[in-house]
Amino acid sequence: MNPVTAAAQVTELVSRRPVGQSLQAPFYVDEEFHHLDIEAVFTRHWIFVATEAELPEPGDYATVTLGTYSVILVRDDDEDVRAFHNVCRHRGTRILGEEHGSVGNIVCGYHRWTYGVDGKLLHVESQAPGFDPTCFSLRSVHVRTVAGLVFICLAEEPPEDFDEVATRIEPYLAPHNLAKAKVATQTDLIENGNWKLVMENNRECYHCTGHPELQSCYFPIYGYQEQDIPPVLRSTYERYQQADAEARKTYESLGLPYAEIEELDTRTTGFHIHREPLDLAGESYTSDGTAACKRLLADFPTARLGRLSLHMQPNSWCHFMADHAITFSVIPLARDRTLLRTTWLVHADAVEGADYDLDTLTKVWKATNDQDAVFVARAQRGVSSPAYLPGPYSPTEYQVEAFINWYITRLKAHLEQQR
Amino acid sequence: MNPVTAAAQVTELVSRRPVGQSLQAPFYVDEEFHHLDIEAVFTRHWIFVATEAELPEPGDYATVTLGTYSVILVRDDDEDVRAFHNVCRHRGTRILGEEHGSVGNIVCGYHRWTYGVDGKLLHVESQAPGFDPTCFSLRSVHVRTVAGLVFICLAEEPPEDFDEVATRIEPYLAPHNLAKAKVATQTDLIENGNWKLVMENNRECYHCTGHPELQSCYFPIYGYQEQDIPPVLRSTYERYQQADAEARKTYESLGLPYAEIEELDTRTTGFHIHREPLDLAGESYTSDGTAACKRLLADFPTARLGRLSLHMQPNSWCHFMADHAITFSVIPLARDRTLLRTTWLVHADAVEGADYDLDTLTKVWKATNDQDAVFVARAQRGVSSPAYLPGPYSPTEYQVEAFINWYITRLKAHLEQQR
Amino acid sequence: MNPVTAAAQVTELVSRRPVGQSLQAPFYVDEEFHHLDIEAVFTRHWIFVATEAELPEPGDYATVTLGTYSVILVRDDDEDVRAFHNVCRHRGTRILGEEHGSVGNIVCGYHRWTYGVDGKLLHVESQAPGFDPTCFSLRSVHVRTVAGLVFICLAEEPPEDFDEVATRIEPYLAPHNLAKAKVATQTDLIENGNWKLVMENNRECYHCTGHPELQSCYFPIYGYQEQDIPPVLRSTYERYQQADAEARKTYESLGLPYAEIEELDTRTTGFHIHREPLDLAGESYTSDGTAACKRLLADFPTARLGRLSLHMQPNSWCHFMADHAITFSVIPLARDRTLLRTTWLVHADAVEGADYDLDTLTKVWKATNDQDAVFVARAQRGVSSPAYLPGPYSPTEYQVEAFINWYITRLKAHLEQQR
Repeated sequence: MNPVTAAAQVTELVSRRPVGQSLQAPFYVDEEFHHLDIEAVFTRHWIFVATEAELPEPGDYATVTLGTYSVILVRDDDEDVRAFHNVCRHRGTRILGEEHGSVGNIVCGYHRWTYGVDGKLLHVESQAPGFDPTCFSLRSVHVRTVAGLVFICLAEEPPEDFDEVATRIEPYLAPHNLAKAKVATQTDLIENGNWKLVMENNRECYHCTGHPELQSCYFPIYGYQEQDIPPVLRSTYERYQQADAEARKTYESLGLPYAEIEELDTRTTGFHIHREPLDLAGESYTSDGTAACKRLLADFPTARLGRLSLHMQPNSWCHFMADHAITFSVIPLARDRTLLRTTWLVHADAVEGADYDLDTLTKVWKATNDQDAVFVARAQRGVSSPAYLPGPYSPTEYQVEAFINWYITRLKAHLEQQR
Repeated sequence: MNPVTAAAQVTELVSRRPVGQSLQAPFYVDEEFHHLDIEAVFTRHWIFVATEAELPEPGDYATVTLGTYSVILVRDDDEDVRAFHNVCRHRGTRILGEEHGSVGNIVCGYHRWTYGVDGKLLHVESQAPGFDPTCFSLRSVHVRTVAGLVFICLAEEPPEDFDEVATRIEPYLAPHNLAKAKVATQTDLIENGNWKLVMENNRECYHCTGHPELQSCYFPIYGYQEQDIPPVLRSTYERYQQADAEARKTYESLGLPYAEIEELDTRTTGFHIHREPLDLAGESYTSDGTAACKRLLADFPTARLGRLSLHMQPNSWCHFMADHAITFSVIPLARDRTLLRTTWLVHADAVEGADYDLDTLTKVWKATNDQDAVFVARAQRGVSSPAYLPGPYSPTEYQVEAFINWYITRLKAHLEQQR
Repeated sequence: MNPVTAAAQVTELVSRRPVGQSLQAPFYVDEEFHHLDIEAVFTRHWIFVATEAELPEPGDYATVTLGTYSVILVRDDDEDVRAFHNVCRHRGTRILGEEHGSVGNIVCGYHRWTYGVDGKLLHVESQAPGFDPTCFSLRSVHVRTVAGLVFICLAEEPPEDFDEVATRIEPYLAPHNLAKAKVATQTDLIENGNWKLVMENNRECYHCTGHPELQSCYFPIYGYQEQDIPPVLRSTYERYQQADAEARKTYESLGLPYAEIEELDTRTTGFHIHREPLDLAGESYTSDGTAACKRLLADFPTARLGRLSLHMQPNSWCHFMADHAITFSVIPLARDRTLLRTTWLVHADAVEGADYDLDTLTKVWKATNDQDAVFVARAQRGVSSPAYLPGPYSPTEYQVEAFINWYITRLKAHLEQQR
């Protein structure tokens, strides 16, 4: 009953988190931690929010919501992506209401204050004497693009290691030509669970028997060390090893980087990247593993490239195949509600109906997302019980532990700084 | 994280509010300020809640909700309007559930406790020994009527200057005969914004290009000083001046008061009253400016009377034309939700279908209200962003500043008293 | 504005509650009291949650929700009812999502952790070295069955007087053979009021003129002392006395206990039990008082047994007739929302359509529940007004006072213990 102790309790819970176990309940269910997560994670780190393909032309914009922030991403006349707070400098009105669109200038519909796509205030009617428009530009937000992926950072001083990470992942991503792709479709799924449960769910395949569609084309050995492969997955593992040997030859002949880099909790901008084969036809996330889009993303001599997978802390994962790419962005909406935005990208010139069919393209991951949403909702309800006790992660869940460890490290750093 | 400091922060925000700028975010988005507004403004001041026309006969009642209060307005046998808390003195049950109706006695449906329309407890079955019914009358609420408008005050000691204000505005309103009018229709619009954003929106016409229907019959020069009229409104302003000169002659010949009184932030019961012309036919708020009701509100020799407009702090504005009147009452529902109740009144003997048509009568203000609700919702979302900074009011928004100044003065007085 | 004082205010409100009056508003409307009620009442006392008839066979289960707790009731292989927290010991996932069902083992669908119906962890894939399954059984919950009624207690040390109460009520209930009955139907009604208003409503018949269906078959003199019977109920009371004299003869000839025991607020597990006649045909809660089910619950020589009524603190009441039984369980969902679960039970071999018809069986209490929900919602809205003052209970509401007195005693004991 005494909220004054809350801050102390938060610090205590963070500093005493036992390694190798799921988090204690307050991390998933308390309002206090929701605010802390927004403050210490989502407004301090680089957050994956969109793809460049959503803004193909100058004047094209997307608006993204992050907590109570709304941010405009807009392609300027130099074809660069810029980011501004979606807040009029007059009386604070949200300026752009749509998620995507195209503008000449950015005009607030309330009192017609008019800004350029560079954020400068161009026109105001009825000004007070001495009014200086140069003091009322839209407030800018840090933005970076990496091979077609758009990241923003709401902090005044973004984490410094992002450039290094960008330099290391760009050679893996660039061959897939994402900056010139187009959005085939995008889905928003609201999951009834804390955002960390959504991320934990993504970081292990211990639950993959619950994903029949995914299992058919994917080697569900993710997270297993060789010695821990359960008997039921033993033959799958052998098939994987053979496919992997073949794939490496292809990657080398095409000059595609494939070495696994795993720095999930050893740096501020934690990430994991890896190129590896898919099962069956080995081309794409489809029922039979064949490409879902005839027009490949780039001028690849074969579609059999498996998947290049990128996991970034705190909120994203992406898969790049020969024929299409899928990006996933996780945004907390409330302590127990999370937005999962999934974007399917194909070559800009691919024609729906001729080169690809949306159902085939999206079937595996739409089903997988829906199944995961059920797991996450059940997890949220379970950890909300006062009878919940943190339990042990199994060895195959080591990337869950890495995510949680990264998260706890971030919280510690933030709380330390707050003192 | 430390709510103990909240009270101090509130006092700080109130005492340091910079003149000429929109309020800081907490005033619009914090729970704390919502409660403070109810406490310091809505349960302390005279609030416009209804029109006498809603209670034509003895026994007719209306219930009004204000925060968690529910108040019964009822016309008693002497034809006076009385106000009581809508709470049974037995176990606290809300007695009347409908918004409007007619009763002989006021009977609680739960255990049949029965009160007269004067609030006295008349009948109880199964009484404890020594039970004294005179101790269990309905609790009364201060109520005042002014030329057909009904105001309540939930404070024990209502602001003392209301009588003086009533005396000054009554001569303006009385000719429109509102006490004998009838309600043609009433709409409840729930706006997704703080009540102060709804009021601010009403106090300026800087945004009126967003109101095409209103603009057609209304001179959108409200709030502009002559020297600030923008070029685009210059010809409108000249037309206004001509219409105003003509109108004054009419007002004088009919003995209708028209001098502007503007005491919006210089007294406890702040108000502004003004009679001025309308555009086009100049008779009413309709597409072509002609009267919407053939039967005028009173025995006026002409319908070309423009509008008598009354603005009262904290929650109302009204327009009185020759043919009809419109009242607007603003009631906070939550920090980000507000009820706007709009009532159209015509002569009690006017016949729908013959004398007036509801669509014609309501078209301009229904459209205007809907447009304003969009502006208010966008403003609420915008000021909710941590990136929002208060911005400067333009000269044409001086009545917004007057409203905010009145509001801050009220809060200061309340916080001072609380010490 | 200072939540630090809340705990002190709670203690003050509890310790100073005036006898004979309804509670002060915070008990019904504050979040603080909602949490206190869950903590001091619902997770500390024996709570009626289900009937054995809902779990006829080994492996049959029901899940019950109590605040943020979810509990599995399951019949084990020895045909005993067991209770476990519905929380996986791995990462806390809610295991069973349905309200009723049947299982071999209890399997968490997320990562396939598998428990027996005795709660033991039987199987886990991918274990960490040194993982000891015996440390990860489902956490058990105290459970007791009394003549077919299922009670749980979430406290580590349940109230000790339950055994004594069970011993005293079992002889009354046993003849109705509930353990061998079946559920004819079950309804969940969410009432828009605090759970205590739902209970208070049940503990008096002062409001029974609001229940026309119930009044027809029921003697609405519940709660009246002979000297307080109002004139309007005088002839009913005489009819009741005659029926009661007849009924006692029947009860004695059949060896059915009927003496009233009223220990509602004089012990931890407060209760009231009484067997008395019904009006009209005197057999059941139906429009004409005749049995709703031809197949009686037991081998009674007559259906004219009136009703055996059991009231238990804090959350239940039940009626047992010759032909059917009805149980009511009240579970708080929020400070102003309460679940009322009503279960109609008939002999396990009774056939719907032949022996009974659901509409006839449920008509009286479905109507009564709906009417009560309206009263409760009005009461909640009324006590939410700052103008609400606690009012006096009438003599006929003495069991409401007993409920409130029991409740306040519990809160005092809990707060004392917390010091």
